Amino acid sequence: MMNQNKIDQFREKVLTHMDARFNTKAPENLYEPISYILGLGGKRMRPVLTLMAVDVFNGSIEDALDAALAIEMFHNFSLVHDDIMDDAPLRRGKVTVHEKWDINTGILSGDAMLIKSYQLFEGYEPQIFKRLVSLFSQTAIEVCEGQQYDVDFETRNDVTISEYLKMIEYKTAVLVAASLKMGAIIAGANDSDADFIYDFGRDLGIAFQLQDDYLDAFGDPETFGKQVGGDIIENKKTILYLKALEFASSDDKKELERLFSEKPKNPEQKIEKAKDIFQKSGAVDFLKKEIENYTQKAFGSLAEISAPKENKMLLQEFGKQLMERSI
Amino acid sequence: MMNQNKIDQFREKVLTHMDARFNTKAPENLYEPISYILGLGGKRMRPVLTLMAVDVFNGSIEDALDAALAIEMFHNFSLVHDDIMDDAPLRRGKVTVHEKWDINTGILSGDAMLIKSYQLFEGYEPQIFKRLVSLFSQTAIEVCEGQQYDVDFETRNDVTISEYLKMIEYKTAVLVAASLKMGAIIAGANDSDADFIYDFGRDLGIAFQLQDDYLDAFGDPETFGKQVGGDIIENKKTILYLKALEFASSDDKKELERLFSEKPKNPEQKIEKAKDIFQKSGAVDFLKKEIENYTQKAFGSLAEISAPKENKMLLQEFGKQLMERSI
Repeated sequence: MMNQNKIDQFREKVLTHMDARFNTKAPENLYEPISYILGLGGKRMRPVLTLMAVDVFNGSIEDALDAALAIEMFHNFSLVHDDIMDDAPLRRGKVTVHEKWDINTGILSGDAMLIKSYQLFEGYEPQIFKRLVSLFSQTAIEVCEGQQYDVDFETRNDVTISEYLKMIEYKTAVLVAASLKMGAIIAGANDSDADFIYDFGRDLGIAFQLQDDYLDAFGDPETFGKQVGGDIIENKKTILYLKALEFASSDDKKELERLFSEKPKNPEQKIEKAKDIFQKSGAVDFLKKEIENYTQKAFGSLAEISAPKENKMLLQEFGKQLMERSI
Repeated sequence: MMNQNKIDQFREKVLTHMDARFNTKAPENLYEPISYILGLGGKRMRPVLTLMAVDVFNGSIEDALDAALAIEMFHNFSLVHDDIMDDAPLRRGKVTVHEKWDINTGILSGDAMLIKSYQLFEGYEPQIFKRLVSLFSQTAIEVCEGQQYDVDFETRNDVTISEYLKMIEYKTAVLVAASLKMGAIIAGANDSDADFIYDFGRDLGIAFQLQDDYLDAFGDPETFGKQVGGDIIENKKTILYLKALEFASSDDKKELERLFSEKPKNPEQKIEKAKDIFQKSGAVDFLKKEIENYTQKAFGSLAEISAPKENKMLLQEFGKQLMERSI
C-alpha cells in the first residue's frame, strides 16, 4: 500500500517534469501533435521504472527526471510511427496523431520526438551523457529491429520460437530494461548491478509479453483489457500458435493452419477450436513454463543486485503484481 | 585543379569508410533500404565539407570519418522521409525507397538511419562526443522545423521574407554549417573559429539556396540541372514571388496572384508573365543583392578564422565555384 503511494509519487514527478520541460513552441504544426500524444496519459511505466531504479541505489530522483522523460518521449515516438504503420485509428481511446492531423505530420512530429529524446540527456555531464546516449541508441535500434521482425513474421511461415522470443525482447523488453539501467547509471551503481537490473527488466518484460499472449486467449474477459481471442481473430502467430504447430498431431496441425487462413465474421467457433488445439497440443503448458522461467530469471537477477533488500522491495512487489494479472 | 583532386580524395575516403562501416545485416527488410539509399550516389558534399574543415585546422582526416558519415546518414534519412511526405517517385534518377518497398519500410528504415547516425559518434571520447551529439541534435531539430515551415508556407498567404529566410536556413543551411563545425571540433579548433566556420557554412548555404531560387526562373536550361520555371509551374512561393507581391503595382500583384492560382497544361506563357513581373517589380534585383550579401557575409566569416590563408584556400575556392554557377 505504501509502495503504491511511492509509485504514484514517482508518476506525479514525471508528469510535473514533463509540463515544466515542454511548452509548445513554433512551428505549431510540428509541436502540437507532440503535446497531444504526450498528454494522452498512460501508466508512464517506463519513466517510473527509471525512478524506481534510482531509488534502489539511493540516487537522486531529481537527477533522473530528464532521462525518465527521454524514455517516455521515445516510447511515444514509437507509438506515433507504429500507429501509422498499423493504420491504427485509436490510441488510449483517442484518435491517433496521423488520424487527427495526417500521415506527414505523424512522420515529421515523430522524427522530432526522437531527436528531442536525445536532447533530454544534455543536462548530464559528458561521461554519464555518453553512457546514457549509447544505451539509448542501442535500445532504440533494437526496438526498430523488433518492429521489423514483427512485420516480417506476418508473411513468414517458418518463424522459430527463438526468433519469436527475440522479436518480443527487442520490440518491448529492451526498453523496459534500459529504463531501469539508466536509473542505475545515474545513481552511480556499479557496472554489474547496472547489468543485473537491466536483465531483471528484460526478462520481466519478456515474461509480461508472453503472459499477454496467454491472456489474449485464456484471460478473464472481465479483467483483461483487450478483446479475448483478438490474436486468434487476427491470425497472429503468437508463441501459442507456433508451439501448437510444432507439437500437434498432423490432423490438428492442418486444422490450425486452416483456421489461421480464414477471418470468419463470427469468430466464436474458430476461437474455441484454436484454444482447444493450443491446450491439447501442450502449447499452453509450454507457454506457462516459459512465463515461469522468465519470471524466475528476472527475480534471480534482482536478488543478485548488491543493494539492501528493503531497497529492492518496491521493484520486487511491482514485478510480482505485474505477473499476477489473473493468470 | 590540385584542389579538385583533394576534394575527390576526400570523397573517396568517405565512400571507402561507408563501405567499411556498413554490411547489411538482419533484419534485411530494415537494412537493405538503407544500403540502397546510401548507394544512390550524390556529391557527398556534406561529409566532404567535414573533412575540408578538419584540413583547415590541420586535424586528422581519419578521426573525422565517423562524424562525416553520421552527417551523410542523417542527410539520407531526411531524404527518405521527405520523399514519402512529397510523394516523390524518383531520387537521383532512381526509384525512392517508399516506391521500391513501401511507405512503412520508408518510415522504419528512416528511423533506423536517424538512430544509426547518432551511433556513429560513439567512437569519440566523452567530451567531444557530447559536443558533437548536441550540435547534431540541435541541427536535426532545426531541419525538422524547416521542413514543417516549408509545408506550412504552401497554404499560407502571409509569409514574410524573414520567415522565408529562416525556413531555408533551417531546412538546408544549418546542416552544411554543422558539417563544417564538426570538422573544426574534431580538429581541436577553438570555439570562436568553430563558430566562424559554422557561420561561413550557414551563410553560404543560404546564398546557395537563394541562388537556386534565382536559377530556377532565370537559369540557363543547358546548365541548370532541373526544369527551368519549375517553381513557377508548381506555384511555389519563393523569395521572388514574395518580394514581387510586396514591390509590384497593384495590377501586377493581382496578375501574379492569379497566375499562381492556376496550373495550366502549357505553362510557357505563365512562366514568361511571372518572370516579367519578377523583373520589373525589382524582386530580381532584390534577390541578387541578397545572394551577394550572404555570399560576402560567408567569406567575411571565413576570413576571420585564425588559420593560415593557404589552409583556407580550399574552402575559399569551393565557395567561389559554388556561387559561380551561371549567375
